[in-house]
Amino acid sequence: MKFIIQRDQLMDSVQDVMKAISSRTTIPILTGIKLEAHADGVKLTGSDSDISIESFIPKEEEGIVYIEQIEPGSIVIQAKYFPDIVRKLPQNTVEIEADEHLKVTIRSGNSEFHLNGQDADEYPQLPKLHTEDSFELPTDLLKNLIKQTVFAVSTVETRPILTGVNMKVANKELDFVATDSHRLASRKIPLTEETENIAFSSVVIPGKSLIELNKILEDTQENVEISVTENQILFRTKNLYFLSRLLDGNYPETSRLIPDQSKTIVYGNTKELLQSIDRASLLAKENRNNVVRFQTKTDNQLEISSNSPEVGNVVEEVTAKSIDGEELKISFSAKYMMDALKAIESDQVKIEFTGAMRPFIIRPIDNDQVLQLILPVRTY
Amino acid sequence: MKFIIQRDQLMDSVQDVMKAISSRTTIPILTGIKLEAHADGVKLTGSDSDISIESFIPKEEEGIVYIEQIEPGSIVIQAKYFPDIVRKLPQNTVEIEADEHLKVTIRSGNSEFHLNGQDADEYPQLPKLHTEDSFELPTDLLKNLIKQTVFAVSTVETRPILTGVNMKVANKELDFVATDSHRLASRKIPLTEETENIAFSSVVIPGKSLIELNKILEDTQENVEISVTENQILFRTKNLYFLSRLLDGNYPETSRLIPDQSKTIVYGNTKELLQSIDRASLLAKENRNNVVRFQTKTDNQLEISSNSPEVGNVVEEVTAKSIDGEELKISFSAKYMMDALKAIESDQVKIEFTGAMRPFIIRPIDNDQVLQLILPVRTY
Repeated sequence: MKFIIQRDQLMDSVQDVMKAISSRTTIPILTGIKLEAHADGVKLTGSDSDISIESFIPKEEEGIVYIEQIEPGSIVIQAKYFPDIVRKLPQNTVEIEADEHLKVTIRSGNSEFHLNGQDADEYPQLPKLHTEDSFELPTDLLKNLIKQTVFAVSTVETRPILTGVNMKVANKELDFVATDSHRLASRKIPLTEETENIAFSSVVIPGKSLIELNKILEDTQENVEISVTENQILFRTKNLYFLSRLLDGNYPETSRLIPDQSKTIVYGNTKELLQSIDRASLLAKENRNNVVRFQTKTDNQLEISSNSPEVGNVVEEVTAKSIDGEELKISFSAKYMMDALKAIESDQVKIEFTGAMRPFIIRPIDNDQVLQLILPVRTY
Repeated sequence: MKFIIQRDQLMDSVQDVMKAISSRTTIPILTGIKLEAHADGVKLTGSDSDISIESFIPKEEEGIVYIEQIEPGSIVIQAKYFPDIVRKLPQNTVEIEADEHLKVTIRSGNSEFHLNGQDADEYPQLPKLHTEDSFELPTDLLKNLIKQTVFAVSTVETRPILTGVNMKVANKELDFVATDSHRLASRKIPLTEETENIAFSSVVIPGKSLIELNKILEDTQENVEISVTENQILFRTKNLYFLSRLLDGNYPETSRLIPDQSKTIVYGNTKELLQSIDRASLLAKENRNNVVRFQTKTDNQLEISSNSPEVGNVVEEVTAKSIDGEELKISFSAKYMMDALKAIESDQVKIEFTGAMRPFIIRPIDNDQVLQLILPVRTY
């Protein structure tokens, strides 16, 4: 195997596949990056067996030549050293060569590295998914669906299914839902002609996979192709192939958690609320999981406060756009509320309460696609 | 105590005095920041008893009003919460008030914090140093003296005196020296009329103090006033007072470590050498303390290399400007050499060797004020 490649393109691909590589894997060869040189380009693969990422660098794209003098072949290189080596090479042209003894030579300018490689035949084969029942989403929309939900997955393994995001199709909508049983985040999009014949009904994608996927995907309007099988999901763009296992088990039915009526509705400025809650929680960091109190007052005033007897207390006054319905005193986790408000992505927010002990809902004022639900904390 | 202050000025001062505050102090009140309101401004103090920092915010400076409605008094506020509170306050105008029960109220916009303060009378008094035998240095020069030497202090406590930088006066020069016994960094400046009657001859300043001082000092040409007593040193600018204890004991005589002749002299480009050594050390991270081999070749060629049998090897070719004298093969710590080359602050560097087992010297090509010395490692 041999090729001469542009360092910057190689570096981008190395960084992408590194997202799948864990030094704690039980399969030693998975601590490496697989390099495959083909006539049309070079493919890099990284995997921790939960997530597998392939990044393809074409020989030439839009008239720009990225790779020259390709002699096909493949090798596995230690991922511990390779990214630093590529980053620090002295010139933008890099020659990579592997011989029959699995010795890899990397040359750039007056710099020459010799590394011990491993046999690419020993690298696990990634499953090739059927792509017939696939659908497409614009990349920036998929990134938003992930960003608005994935933070709410559970981080404890007591109910493993809750560490994933539930992607499901119902009522001609595609719905992403995550919950850790204290809060819930949901984002729906209507199915289009292109997506309405999706073959699956409900799968659960590990939150960790989606977090890594979101780091790699660029914020473009180009489509991502999504294919689902019984136990795997594949996200594919022109040069990227991101495969994740799915979580086993049934995701809980979450729709009945969502109250269908409300007793108090608050309309307010998202950023003002976010900043006030942030400040109100500053002294509560060590007490009761960051709990703040939220109270309606007359004249559209809200009071957000917290009290940590040893340290002191904070009182924030916020002027709401309007407060309708019953008076309310409620306590909740400042962290959950801040996560929810950040995911709203709208200047104005609508918060619907059904009493101090019932879950409440946060939505953008102008659309119903995003829904954030938080369970209050009993303090009054 | 009461005053209304501009948040940005307060934030700068809080960040400065925080550099002296440690949460691991054995004196509980030192986990706080002392605030003193005087008729002419507000003074903040932080201390871990090794380092004490006072930052003064004048009521008014160059026609700009920073503080209004001052009612003199003082209080100690928990440093754990105060910086975050100040940073996140909603408006640039902040009112701070302390009552006779040591309750502190911080108001900004619709935000109000109540904190439990501590009695400022219980805060240790900082010693007032005599400033008669003080001298002055431009701030940017002092910062350079520190930066070019402090990295070479010892980080282990086996010889505590080596954890400091030796500041001494000899031969009408002011000399900063640091060594961890494997390498030495020195920067000299000639005494000027203003500095030639410095009263002290040699003191040792804790490296940690100088590192914190360098974070606080701005890169200006304004003077820093330096005062030395038997066991303390004070650095003073217009609004800053930085006091550090000195280290007890005699600093070793380092001048006889420095070879006065050489057998091989290499002239080269600082950045090229630095980057080649960086790359050559990439595979050596876990082996023998990052050791690389350095070898002269014909035609002004240098070879820098390292070998880690399990991982692979690296060979870097560097073209020197010139190589004079005997052939040389030597091994040294890549980290020490990179630290030294970064401290040179000159495009071209002169390296003087006296054989493979003797310390060697790195200097800028164009001045003798900076000297870096490294002990080689025996590998050949």
